[in-house]
Amino acid sequence: MGDSRPGLDLHRIFSPQSVAVIGASTRPESVGRAVFGNVLHYDYTGVVYPVNPKTRSIMGVRAYPSVLEIPDPVDLAVIIVPSGGVAQVLHECGRKGIQGAIVITAGFKELGGEGISKEAEVLAAARQSGIPLLGPNCLGIINTDPQVSLNASFSRLMPQPGNIALVSQSGAVGVAALEYAQAECIGLSKFVSVGNKADLNETAFLAYLLDDPQTDVILLYLEDLAAPQEFCQLVQGSGQRKPILAIKSGRTAAGAQAASSHTGALAGSDAAYDALFAQCGVFRVESLEELFDYAAALATQPLPEGNRTAIVTNAGGLGIMATDAAVRYGLTMASFQEETTKVLRESLPPAANIHNPVDVLGDASDERYAAALEGVLADPGVDGAIVISTPQLMTNLAAIATKVAQVAGRHQKPTLVCQMALGEIEETLTILTQARLPHYHFPEETARALAAMARFARSRRRPRYEVKAFTDVDRERVKQVLSEVTRAGRNFVLEPEAHLIFQAYGFPTLPFRWAHSTAEAALAAEELGYPVAVKIVSPDIVHKVEVGGVRVSLHNAGEVAQAYEEIMAGAAQVEPRPALAGVMVQKMAAPGTEMILGMTRDPHFGPLLMIGLGGTLVEIFQDVMFSVAPISEQWAQKMIRELKAFPLLNGYRGKPPADQEIIAECLERLSQLVLDFPEIRELDINPLMVFPQGQGAAVVDARIFVG
Amino acid sequence: MGDSRPGLDLHRIFSPQSVAVIGASTRPESVGRAVFGNVLHYDYTGVVYPVNPKTRSIMGVRAYPSVLEIPDPVDLAVIIVPSGGVAQVLHECGRKGIQGAIVITAGFKELGGEGISKEAEVLAAARQSGIPLLGPNCLGIINTDPQVSLNASFSRLMPQPGNIALVSQSGAVGVAALEYAQAECIGLSKFVSVGNKADLNETAFLAYLLDDPQTDVILLYLEDLAAPQEFCQLVQGSGQRKPILAIKSGRTAAGAQAASSHTGALAGSDAAYDALFAQCGVFRVESLEELFDYAAALATQPLPEGNRTAIVTNAGGLGIMATDAAVRYGLTMASFQEETTKVLRESLPPAANIHNPVDVLGDASDERYAAALEGVLADPGVDGAIVISTPQLMTNLAAIATKVAQVAGRHQKPTLVCQMALGEIEETLTILTQARLPHYHFPEETARALAAMARFARSRRRPRYEVKAFTDVDRERVKQVLSEVTRAGRNFVLEPEAHLIFQAYGFPTLPFRWAHSTAEAALAAEELGYPVAVKIVSPDIVHKVEVGGVRVSLHNAGEVAQAYEEIMAGAAQVEPRPALAGVMVQKMAAPGTEMILGMTRDPHFGPLLMIGLGGTLVEIFQDVMFSVAPISEQWAQKMIRELKAFPLLNGYRGKPPADQEIIAECLERLSQLVLDFPEIRELDINPLMVFPQGQGAAVVDARIFVG
Repeated sequence: MGDSRPGLDLHRIFSPQSVAVIGASTRPESVGRAVFGNVLHYDYTGVVYPVNPKTRSIMGVRAYPSVLEIPDPVDLAVIIVPSGGVAQVLHECGRKGIQGAIVITAGFKELGGEGISKEAEVLAAARQSGIPLLGPNCLGIINTDPQVSLNASFSRLMPQPGNIALVSQSGAVGVAALEYAQAECIGLSKFVSVGNKADLNETAFLAYLLDDPQTDVILLYLEDLAAPQEFCQLVQGSGQRKPILAIKSGRTAAGAQAASSHTGALAGSDAAYDALFAQCGVFRVESLEELFDYAAALATQPLPEGNRTAIVTNAGGLGIMATDAAVRYGLTMASFQEETTKVLRESLPPAANIHNPVDVLGDASDERYAAALEGVLADPGVDGAIVISTPQLMTNLAAIATKVAQVAGRHQKPTLVCQMALGEIEETLTILTQARLPHYHFPEETARALAAMARFARSRRRPRYEVKAFTDVDRERVKQVLSEVTRAGRNFVLEPEAHLIFQAYGFPTLPFRWAHSTAEAALAAEELGYPVAVKIVSPDIVHKVEVGGVRVSLHNAGEVAQAYEEIMAGAAQVEPRPALAGVMVQKMAAPGTEMILGMTRDPHFGPLLMIGLGGTLVEIFQDVMFSVAPISEQWAQKMIRELKAFPLLNGYRGKPPADQEIIAECLERLSQLVLDFPEIRELDINPLMVFPQGQGAAVVDARIFVG
Repeated sequence: MGDSRPGLDLHRIFSPQSVAVIGASTRPESVGRAVFGNVLHYDYTGVVYPVNPKTRSIMGVRAYPSVLEIPDPVDLAVIIVPSGGVAQVLHECGRKGIQGAIVITAGFKELGGEGISKEAEVLAAARQSGIPLLGPNCLGIINTDPQVSLNASFSRLMPQPGNIALVSQSGAVGVAALEYAQAECIGLSKFVSVGNKADLNETAFLAYLLDDPQTDVILLYLEDLAAPQEFCQLVQGSGQRKPILAIKSGRTAAGAQAASSHTGALAGSDAAYDALFAQCGVFRVESLEELFDYAAALATQPLPEGNRTAIVTNAGGLGIMATDAAVRYGLTMASFQEETTKVLRESLPPAANIHNPVDVLGDASDERYAAALEGVLADPGVDGAIVISTPQLMTNLAAIATKVAQVAGRHQKPTLVCQMALGEIEETLTILTQARLPHYHFPEETARALAAMARFARSRRRPRYEVKAFTDVDRERVKQVLSEVTRAGRNFVLEPEAHLIFQAYGFPTLPFRWAHSTAEAALAAEELGYPVAVKIVSPDIVHKVEVGGVRVSLHNAGEVAQAYEEIMAGAAQVEPRPALAGVMVQKMAAPGTEMILGMTRDPHFGPLLMIGLGGTLVEIFQDVMFSVAPISEQWAQKMIRELKAFPLLNGYRGKPPADQEIIAECLERLSQLVLDFPEIRELDINPLMVFPQGQGAAVVDARIFVG
């Protein structure tokens, strides 16, 4: 799956002193011509050498039949030769002492079959030669730093310099993104198309970009993550000092991979991506538009301290639309201090609305905008502002932009501009771009971008979480139980075994006995005290209730004995005849709130923890939270708090609040258990009966699958 | 509140033979100059007369001191004189025989205070003169029909002719919309800014546009509806032959107007707008972008028969993003027939993806696009197609657009184009526009627009609903009960009275007695049969449970007597001492599914009906549906089906399905009851206990407020 090698220095790939374009060509519309032309024509500050054995020169530059014939040292090779020749070229690059290679050539893993072995061969050649390799099947890289100015790609466009970096797994999405950035006057620092990620993957580039002084915001387009754990560690380690926004496509296709068990069906690997991004602090977005809308704001404006938003508009209707959108995206409308209202009243005409959203009226001049914006930004109850300017009869959009930029520049609060005009506004857009004021076409987009900034700011203020290691766990006991399961050739852990495992890991369990006869069951119940439940134990019965294998609320030995016999008689009717291993007699839990805790092991991400409330309504509303293990106490609490049904756990309508501490602890212990025992494939506790605050909880029913 | 007069002929306003611009001016940047200039310079096919007593001519055209001095007949007056002079001008227009007026002048109702009376004066003048009036405080109108070509507004822009009409309550939003339409190459048939709606309102213009042969799609920007019932009747009467899309802003502000009672708190007038639009078949959208994205598709492409979507792309990553978006917006990905797969396999290179989304690869020519699109559109399992074209190295976007247009034109299925390039694509966009192929920048937008078309098509296929009139209702009985309530000076209907009302309107109620002593209560219970509930009756106690005023599951006369005495003793403790009116002894309902039915009367919309499941979880998930009365049987069923918790009523996990017929009938009867008795201000049935299919339901608890 490639190599992320976060420590690796990619300097030679992004900032080489010299580049060899191997497979450079004079053929019109060829990739070899496009790449060489881009290096040559976009003011590269180093030296570029075309390599092509069939020609003397390309675009007037002396060509060489092989890298080995270039008389000077070469830092970077950009390779566009046919797929069969790439490995050979890489060996030559190794001999030449080249320290980085970009393989643009396609025709490898993406074709399947023979392509896979061809790619393995190319990777082997790169490794043998000690050359870090980007690609194959990629668009290349771009570095807009004027000290380098390298476009080693076949993109039609060279972006303007800026402080946003873009890493794209799809070349075409990369191209679309470059087009969009250009149309929206958004500059980029670096662009890299990672292609098949045979060697260097997104994590390697992310590591580089996190340290890159030219880059303040990092954008990712991903179709998968080559190394989720490393990715997550890297991002967490960075302490969110640079915002990272990601599109991960394939959201719904993943949803279709319905897993078999109940927990699994709700999971699916897209939930794992959601969980992983949320946990490590990457902002997941759904579209290129969102990606750049947010990046433009994060790259240019200070972060807001909170959600309180002021709107200044010269059109009432758009002010209302912006207010609707702000609230919809989670911002709140600021209430102005008396002082602010006074200032606005004095500086605006009587017909103006001096409350939020502030309407400076259709005939507003630049001065009026300046007064209103100054007023609201000076208010300590305002965290950020949206300025809407629409072209009305006498509106001087450029003058307004100039004044808005001056006022915004005096305050450490984000100001975003909604510029409703679409024609003849080049001058205005230039003023806004130069003043580093992000601008949008619609009130909705503007509000959405400010809301994203507030969300990022909040997430960055969150303290770093530490994962607790419980030392009161009995690892040996679990090992022993699981090895008995393996020895018996089962993949289903019997319920008494499961309860032993939970007991050993410090979960709150209920007293129980494993009984193999009527007499044993009755005796067990007497020892445990009433009421008890009796549940069938069989390696062949996963769904006990459906075969009549469960009796609850038994109050005396007679009832227990009868339950035992009825259960056994019922099991005898089941076809095919299940193997029986007695019953579990379990003390009944007191009434409480039923919750479900679960784990499915994702082949790519590892253990995915799940929590939800019990009951059919919760199932219908799909109200569950997922996280990738390990999790900290704070994260466990966050999972609980983010359930839509959380109010029910928190003292709803006079009910006592549930014991949230024990739920969080169970999640943390679950996290530790499934990381300690990778052989646990799937698990659910359903229900975990949760009692009122301070009174704990009890694992009532549980299933564990191994293997 | 204005006048909608749907029958009124607005022909003289949109297509006058001659126009007087009263208040035309030569002053630079004045509205009077802008309006006159627009009429003059955009090829108006009639005659325009500037009216201004201070000048001989305006822009070279002979001016008149007053309309009365114009020697020829005048159809339309556009008035820009100061607000104080408008009424006088309207009187003159009347004398001149002018048949329509647009008052652009501001300074009326929008200022409050004196402005309100000024506006009343203007309206009176228009009425006296028999002149239909648009405005005041509006931008004007535009008619792009080349037979007329009239821009009687102060917009900077004259839109291209097209088949989309736009009605905007905000001038600035109108301007923003015109700018956007121009930037997106979207043509308009008519534009009207309705301003303060003193006389003509959106319903009047809607009536005109529904009959306008130049208009196929109607867009509305509204901040309120002047006459909701008339609006709704008009739209319903139109049978959805033209799609109507609306932005109604102020969504969240309305939400803040929290009403006092439980039902009311969930309602609020924005819910009424949502309900009204849904019921009459208007598509509510949130942003200008959505408005035009959907309009562009609806105005140019055939409606899809269903949701099944094919995607053709030259970039895999964008195909995945489009798939994600399609599924997210409610489309389904078509599964191709074997025949189609065969055709695609034969016409595309081996590396192409011949399944949906079809990837024609980065080097795809126009021919390859044509083959793929022809293949998928010919598949009877495909209802519509999305074509994505991204600029890759050899991509000829214009050639592809040409071929895609040819193929799409041969099929009666909607084809929407996602054109990812943003620079240097004028030629391509012209080809698409001329071929009437709607085009979008992003896969998400494209999928969202196709999904909107599918939704509109589905809604249009819906048969026209008829509201049933129940004849088995006892209106006199209800009148009698309510007059007793009024006579007693109460606004709270006592529970036994409420049950009498429901009984009279054919709701399934439980047998009950109203008892005023211990002995009466016990006797009542004996007559009713057990188990029974006993509930306090008091005009001062709305929340019975909170004062210990309810006892349930009583099984004999002794329990009933004890309950009576405890309830009375409890009530004696309440401060301030409530007036008591005995107890209601009610037969207990069998267990069932608890639902809530309610009604709040919106001052503007009339009765707003509500339905939801009972219980705290439903409250937390805010899972309720609202509708404006009256409702048909089919609509009542739709309200039930659209509850998120509907699966619980429909045989979830082996439970018997609930009696949905009786729930729908209760909703219909409720609709009739609250329309028959406007004095019922608020009402809720909580719970309506619903039994399994065929077994009916029972009104258990109910509250009615009048006045």
